[in-house]
Amino acid sequence: MNKLLIVGTVAFDAIETPFGKIDKILGGSASYIGLSASHFDVNSAIVSVVGSDFPKDILEAFEAQSIDTSAIEVIAGEKTFFWSGRYHENMNNRDTIVTELNVLSKFNPVIPTYFKDANLVVLGNLSPDSQKSVISQITNKNAFVILDTMNFWIDNALEGLLEVLKKVDVICINEEEARQLTSEKTLALAAKKIYKMGPKFVVIKKGEHGALLFYKDKIFSAPALPLEVVFDPTGAGDTFAGGFAGFLTKTNDFSFENMKQALIYGSAMASFCVEKFGPERLFDIDTESLTNRLKAFENLTQFEINHSL
Amino acid sequence: MNKLLIVGTVAFDAIETPFGKIDKILGGSASYIGLSASHFDVNSAIVSVVGSDFPKDILEAFEAQSIDTSAIEVIAGEKTFFWSGRYHENMNNRDTIVTELNVLSKFNPVIPTYFKDANLVVLGNLSPDSQKSVISQITNKNAFVILDTMNFWIDNALEGLLEVLKKVDVICINEEEARQLTSEKTLALAAKKIYKMGPKFVVIKKGEHGALLFYKDKIFSAPALPLEVVFDPTGAGDTFAGGFAGFLTKTNDFSFENMKQALIYGSAMASFCVEKFGPERLFDIDTESLTNRLKAFENLTQFEINHSL
Repeated sequence: MNKLLIVGTVAFDAIETPFGKIDKILGGSASYIGLSASHFDVNSAIVSVVGSDFPKDILEAFEAQSIDTSAIEVIAGEKTFFWSGRYHENMNNRDTIVTELNVLSKFNPVIPTYFKDANLVVLGNLSPDSQKSVISQITNKNAFVILDTMNFWIDNALEGLLEVLKKVDVICINEEEARQLTSEKTLALAAKKIYKMGPKFVVIKKGEHGALLFYKDKIFSAPALPLEVVFDPTGAGDTFAGGFAGFLTKTNDFSFENMKQALIYGSAMASFCVEKFGPERLFDIDTESLTNRLKAFENLTQFEINHSL
Repeated sequence: MNKLLIVGTVAFDAIETPFGKIDKILGGSASYIGLSASHFDVNSAIVSVVGSDFPKDILEAFEAQSIDTSAIEVIAGEKTFFWSGRYHENMNNRDTIVTELNVLSKFNPVIPTYFKDANLVVLGNLSPDSQKSVISQITNKNAFVILDTMNFWIDNALEGLLEVLKKVDVICINEEEARQLTSEKTLALAAKKIYKMGPKFVVIKKGEHGALLFYKDKIFSAPALPLEVVFDPTGAGDTFAGGFAGFLTKTNDFSFENMKQALIYGSAMASFCVEKFGPERLFDIDTESLTNRLKAFENLTQFEINHSL
């Protein structure tokens, strides 16, 4: 089985959407990425940090999904990273109410020996310094590296971010952040500028409008599935990245054709994620549901042009 | 040749985008719809109204594109409908600076006898009363009717709009307007509610994110082409509707499969429109450019899932 290494946050979230409210639920980029990727028969590990308030049964639930949790450091007497947010009526905007870094401020990722030769590495949203430290510990020089980042690091650690970008294969970034990072108006020009910063592939996430994959002069567009009810969008972007990474780890094929398929798998996983609070839905996706969801994406996008008209 | 009847505005626009400024250029929903549809070998006519300030050479330019202009009424001593707007840096938002209805306030559409049996009718953005009057003049009881509307009519003429909706086959509507019309949060639920108002097909336009086609329990998503430069988005939605309608008129096939293709043709036409100011680009699209653009849409969206994985 191919090895997938995931570095990112494991957290508690409090979430309020127009459909309901939950005071404490598992959150964090690495949780969503790991749970999503766990559906792809990979040998995965999460590298992260939590406080002694973090319940053992969640770590056991990760292990039950074949996610190695031995590199999730537990810091005694300290509290787990906490985020709380409230979604607007339209579900596309949200306000952050609280961010308590807690243990995260001391996070110093240490990659377990067994995962230093991982086939694929996902650097979840973290400080560029932590991301750089992870890359330096990887011994597989052909490891395929996917980096996720956000506006906070563009604003506050641009120099470090630009340094890490030189060393990654794929960047996953939101559309606003792609514009912010490049000062370009269109995503097509933004992607071209990002190529020059290092990544060969640029994945631009557009939330309910899907995602775009840029590679050289090629572009692929994956839509989001128009769902009747979007219960909670929290973690959908990370779930997308997890499905994308899980599929790529399993197939170990980084051709553009296979990356397109990976983008659809990522989108399918994200479409499950939003159906329940937090990552709940990611624990109970069976093969049949996934197959049906992939067929829904085919029906949604496939057409035939009669060029002889 | 099949007949396409277009009812809507013919106007002057003043446009300012981050790329430039133009004080007076041809505008109006019917202009964009007609020019876009003219690339599909159809027998089309525009029903509209202009003032005596409207230059004959523009009417001649329409005729040169095989658009019948005999039903564009010219009101002596009056001025043509005028709109001016300014786009924000991000090109997705714009402010309306001036709207002068002028002749439009007296518009009473009269359908020429030769077009009363049109195969397809496009009701461009107009008062529901005018749209209703057009439908009542059509003698072909099997005419396929496409209606476009906007927030102004939802706010100010909802009752009339709901009456017209009972008589149309397709509604073309923006995503915000679909939400406004139905009070639904998701587009999937909005479409279901709109079916109950009359239209069998619901087309939801999402600007730079493409368009969705809903029919019964089926959904098709057409992306917009990620262009490097979007020079002027004015009229892109109407150009989309014109390409959609032109293709449907030419093929006279209203199956879901063919509607999907029509949506891609509409999207391709819209991708040309935004390349120059106003409708300029719509005058010089050759077959080869259109074929290449359609191939770009295929490359952008087509993928193959290996279900045996």
